[in-house]
Amino acid sequence: MERIDTLKNGNKIIQDPEKFCFGIDAVLLAHFASNEIKRGDSVVDLCTGNGIIPMLLEKSSMATHLTGVEIQKESADFARKSIQLNNLENKITLINGDIKNVNEWLPKHQTQIVTCNPPYMINEHGRQNNTDFKTIARHEIFCNFEDVVKAADYLLSTDGKFFLIHRPFRLAEIFSTLKQYKLEPKRMQLIQPFENTEPNIVLLEARKNAHSRLKIEKNLIVYEKPGLYTQEIQEIYNN
Amino acid sequence: MERIDTLKNGNKIIQDPEKFCFGIDAVLLAHFASNEIKRGDSVVDLCTGNGIIPMLLEKSSMATHLTGVEIQKESADFARKSIQLNNLENKITLINGDIKNVNEWLPKHQTQIVTCNPPYMINEHGRQNNTDFKTIARHEIFCNFEDVVKAADYLLSTDGKFFLIHRPFRLAEIFSTLKQYKLEPKRMQLIQPFENTEPNIVLLEARKNAHSRLKIEKNLIVYEKPGLYTQEIQEIYNN
Repeated sequence: MERIDTLKNGNKIIQDPEKFCFGIDAVLLAHFASNEIKRGDSVVDLCTGNGIIPMLLEKSSMATHLTGVEIQKESADFARKSIQLNNLENKITLINGDIKNVNEWLPKHQTQIVTCNPPYMINEHGRQNNTDFKTIARHEIFCNFEDVVKAADYLLSTDGKFFLIHRPFRLAEIFSTLKQYKLEPKRMQLIQPFENTEPNIVLLEARKNAHSRLKIEKNLIVYEKPGLYTQEIQEIYNN
Repeated sequence: MERIDTLKNGNKIIQDPEKFCFGIDAVLLAHFASNEIKRGDSVVDLCTGNGIIPMLLEKSSMATHLTGVEIQKESADFARKSIQLNNLENKITLINGDIKNVNEWLPKHQTQIVTCNPPYMINEHGRQNNTDFKTIARHEIFCNFEDVVKAADYLLSTDGKFFLIHRPFRLAEIFSTLKQYKLEPKRMQLIQPFENTEPNIVLLEARKNAHSRLKIEKNLIVYEKPGLYTQEIQEIYNN
């Protein structure tokens, strides 16, 4: 059942709890990226889903134009409707298509910022037959991590920045693939649910053709106790 | 001035405060590795300095035999003297030589465990002319990170484990080089000086030919307050 939610920043977003709603990952990624986006920058959000990342960055960053790319028609339709609902047709463009074909719609090396909250899970155990809505959003059915990096590499201008959220268990592969495409990991933050638990999310900033030097930020803790966000997370949500 | 210190485990170690004494890095690396070493395993410690890592692992792990490789003659002599002082000539072997020539003294793919606390700093700014004792131990004058990984790859048997301590700012390069040599990063722990500071040390376990999946452990905090170790660090030192 489709519904309209109002974001803290005032924008409205259409989502469907039975299919997919945005979660903390989108909020964390937008926050991690927004201060690094300069006036005049254009942003492309790969695997944009219902467009939550452009809808957050539209307010929190200085980006001049934002484009979301989403392969699933239903999500893309939600995103388009949200854009209209907020009268943002001149600021946010939605492309319903496969990121592997991004060269068909977008120019090479002209984008300053690429963001992506990709499917986290490796497509194993013959899941390719499963075209369930949530499975596609979570598993690498239609694209794998290298496809995401290839698209970012195609889009980004010299010194362009790539902001990414993923699972820490894939970190070695992520670093290795980014370096292969000369997208150098420059900043990383691990997110852990509680003070005493291991990290389960990683935020990354890579920069095109940069020299190799990674800054690891202090871990971010999500919950003070079950059901209660830490001060830091509350501030991120209220941004 | 050379002096004899007694480790918590009872072994004596010769060092020289004006040149180089072992620090917390050696203690952390030995602790990170020791539980993963099985009875019958042989260990090679690359860039062993005064032999602190073999001297710690000799007691804390099940290793049957340990070999240290050190390029600087003075450190190697200290290590040899410490081995004699503890009557460990049958258990610890010291090689004074370059890890790039490790194939001259040690067999290929016969070692179960390789450890290394390498020089952390990239050799830039023409430092190659600086052959000061401490500079060689800290900067990549005589070997770089790829040399270390090459030596580990040469030594390790199938499923062999490589334990490493390094600086987080080099993590992307480290992961990428390890993967290039099919030494898959499997476990990582970041160390931070205080609860509110960024990590400045990383511990890594890589396994030869393993599939790609990294476990990131909870960060380890060194100081409760300036001059006072946390409980966790005190326990590691007392191990």
